[in-house]
Amino acid sequence: MLPYIAEFLGTMLLILLGDGVVANVTLNKSGMKGAGSVQITFAWGLAVMIPACIFGAASGASFNPALTLALAIDGSFAWFMVPGYIIAQFAGAFVGACLVYLLFKGQFDATDDAAVKRGVFCTAPSIRNRGLNILSEAIGTFVLVFAIKGMGNVPGLTDGLGKFIVFGIIVSIGMSLGGLTGYAINPARDLGPRLAHAVLPIRGKGSSDWDYGIVPLVGPILGAIAAVALYAAIPW
Amino acid sequence: MLPYIAEFLGTMLLILLGDGVVANVTLNKSGMKGAGSVQITFAWGLAVMIPACIFGAASGASFNPALTLALAIDGSFAWFMVPGYIIAQFAGAFVGACLVYLLFKGQFDATDDAAVKRGVFCTAPSIRNRGLNILSEAIGTFVLVFAIKGMGNVPGLTDGLGKFIVFGIIVSIGMSLGGLTGYAINPARDLGPRLAHAVLPIRGKGSSDWDYGIVPLVGPILGAIAAVALYAAIPW
Amino acid sequence: MLPYIAEFLGTMLLILLGDGVVANVTLNKSGMKGAGSVQITFAWGLAVMIPACIFGAASGASFNPALTLALAIDGSFAWFMVPGYIIAQFAGAFVGACLVYLLFKGQFDATDDAAVKRGVFCTAPSIRNRGLNILSEAIGTFVLVFAIKGMGNVPGLTDGLGKFIVFGIIVSIGMSLGGLTGYAINPARDLGPRLAHAVLPIRGKGSSDWDYGIVPLVGPILGAIAAVALYAAIPW
Amino acid sequence: MLPYIAEFLGTMLLILLGDGVVANVTLNKSGMKGAGSVQITFAWGLAVMIPACIFGAASGASFNPALTLALAIDGSFAWFMVPGYIIAQFAGAFVGACLVYLLFKGQFDATDDAAVKRGVFCTAPSIRNRGLNILSEAIGTFVLVFAIKGMGNVPGLTDGLGKFIVFGIIVSIGMSLGGLTGYAINPARDLGPRLAHAVLPIRGKGSSDWDYGIVPLVGPILGAIAAVALYAAIPW
Repeated sequence: MLPYIAEFLGTMLLILLGDGVVANVTLNKSGMKGAGSVQITFAWGLAVMIPACIFGAASGASFNPALTLALAIDGSFAWFMVPGYIIAQFAGAFVGACLVYLLFKGQFDATDDAAVKRGVFCTAPSIRNRGLNILSEAIGTFVLVFAIKGMGNVPGLTDGLGKFIVFGIIVSIGMSLGGLTGYAINPARDLGPRLAHAVLPIRGKGSSDWDYGIVPLVGPILGAIAAVALYAAIPW
Repeated sequence: MLPYIAEFLGTMLLILLGDGVVANVTLNKSGMKGAGSVQITFAWGLAVMIPACIFGAASGASFNPALTLALAIDGSFAWFMVPGYIIAQFAGAFVGACLVYLLFKGQFDATDDAAVKRGVFCTAPSIRNRGLNILSEAIGTFVLVFAIKGMGNVPGLTDGLGKFIVFGIIVSIGMSLGGLTGYAINPARDLGPRLAHAVLPIRGKGSSDWDYGIVPLVGPILGAIAAVALYAAIPW
Repeated sequence: MLPYIAEFLGTMLLILLGDGVVANVTLNKSGMKGAGSVQITFAWGLAVMIPACIFGAASGASFNPALTLALAIDGSFAWFMVPGYIIAQFAGAFVGACLVYLLFKGQFDATDDAAVKRGVFCTAPSIRNRGLNILSEAIGTFVLVFAIKGMGNVPGLTDGLGKFIVFGIIVSIGMSLGGLTGYAINPARDLGPRLAHAVLPIRGKGSSDWDYGIVPLVGPILGAIAAVALYAAIPW
Repeated sequence: MLPYIAEFLGTMLLILLGDGVVANVTLNKSGMKGAGSVQITFAWGLAVMIPACIFGAASGASFNPALTLALAIDGSFAWFMVPGYIIAQFAGAFVGACLVYLLFKGQFDATDDAAVKRGVFCTAPSIRNRGLNILSEAIGTFVLVFAIKGMGNVPGLTDGLGKFIVFGIIVSIGMSLGGLTGYAINPARDLGPRLAHAVLPIRGKGSSDWDYGIVPLVGPILGAIAAVALYAAIPW
């Protein structure tokens, strides 16, 4: 049971801290409103790194169905565990988003813009274009998965330092490509909180934009698979 | 005596650097006024990391009554040392805050807003709501204590790299949740400097807002205890 | 073949992430427009560090013709591999820049200023002065190459931690000297994407400013050679 | 000769990168004008860390007469080398500042404010008060030297990771206390470039403010001596 518990709790913590920074920086009456994308991208990096430290030994700290799937295709992860991992990841993301709503309830109520409220939960493109949006998510996730695989090439890399490289990978993708689609690069990170947005009684919340939900589902899966495929094709 | 001296000096340094950055960034006539929350959160992370490097071997570098208490409940820290640690932590925080006042005396005098002055010393909520404020402090401290316990799971983690993870944990909580209540996540960090605010002859200082003081006392203790309890319940 | 593939893919990734952050932060309708030079410099550091982790063991992770040349002069790199490396680096930079264009197509179309569009691809001086611009690029590259050589002096430095020092070197040069010429410090990083700018059908793109291209070619080569020469002259 | 060469070159590089970031961020027509104190403090941390990596093994990487003196008083550094170190440090700082002037010549000419020009070279207080300014420099340097001594307490700390802790110490002092006096915390860092300001033919440069020069001389020396004295008094 431990790996599934770890994926659930780790993804919950990831979203608590990740959706948390978006709430912290964008909602009215938050003490840190307006801090901007340096804080958002830095904090998302930490939001992945910290649960990776806590739960890495227990579950491998995937927290991401696209990564889990790609590692299974790759032969690095047991197929029979995939369904449980993915359920745990979505459930953790959903609960994490509910916690963010609970904590920032007053700030949500003080914010009028429905897109800002939804933006705490899930991603949206800066220019809506299904093909390019999927490509953007695919390339972001490609970098994520390819770099995670490639970390294994650093001679003598310790587990501890590896967590900081993961931090760097997440920050890099966010800082360099995040303005395109908000870098979901993880179906659970987007769709779990999107479901929370849909079911929570958020005042004046507007649409959950499920129409866009296909992008952070398909893009990351394609990118993750492409990453393990290219990685396997290189004559290391 | 060494552990108590270390907790006193370490907490003093923590508050000198931590309350220091708030003064540095918010008071009139400071050369870095307006630098914003990236600087505040980054610097608080360093304000914990640096005394943790210096005093970690001597005292375990708790600097935090809620953490000390939780570790005692957990069985990781001797109960008979708890009272002395807590006294040292509060005393260190008080002295650190007095140093910040001494250094920034001219900047305090040049600042009119009493809430800004008090904000250098101690925390305040962005929306006053006792229940949610306590929850916010509890969850912030939960993340702190749970992550400190969880760092132990990283295979082969060195003491040195562990200090950087502690830095990351503090920055993460600040960046992601700090806009709610200013992330005291430590009763000594809030109440020691609040006492300094109450007794120091600060021009036009206004109320020390003791009414709110219950929040950074109760919230962190509840969160810290919940963290060690959940950590113990997981079948690692 | 592996080293050449690694230099190609690594430089492609470097430019995807590096030119990516400039697009992300400067083009209209990007969700992170206006984030400023902290994000740009931090992200360029990661844009070097991440491919260096992935490809360091395979090719040495030069990604930079000036560095490759200087290491050959220095005797640390085989001359017969220099041409292939340089071709791979330019080709990778070209392809990386094309990817950035493809991803940010909508944002390019939404941006009118031709200098901003070109600025995503390649560098430009803040004050045009061929002599001083070459000096600026030479000194920036001197610091890069001298520091990379000098890292070898840190006792017991692991490969993993070395990647973070490389990150620090790139960020340092950018933050301290980047406002002069945009710190190409690498002929492939500038001229590969400049060629992409010249050939891609970018709407309203204006001149590719080939006249300036001599600066990021000559400056980095001079600086890199000076660095290995001074390094060799010091009686370590 | 090597240690003296290393102190000379290391301090030169420190000032090239450190005064460099101030020029980069404050002078007119620099491409990164206005980036603010996060960039300044982060870059000063790297400006110390990078020469410390290169020259640490050769000279101990002091780059700071107050630190050198305190380590001699402490018994950790040979007295007979002190004069040569201090000369090398001042000379390196002077040359580094001249390089910054040369590189940013056009930006200096485009800037009218004499205080901004001088601010690239040397420090100034936000509120002029000799006693408090000396105290500010003394406490900043106290933190620097006490933390450098205290790093030795981290069990098993590697040389490589120690460089990152040094980075953190410098950034912390800057972010938390830098708005008081600009955190010289090093007589050579202030007075070497101040001399460069005095002798260089800078257009419209105004006074070099030698009257203030006593502060970054006396404050750091007092703070450094206090740090080694307190450190020795603690019953580790």
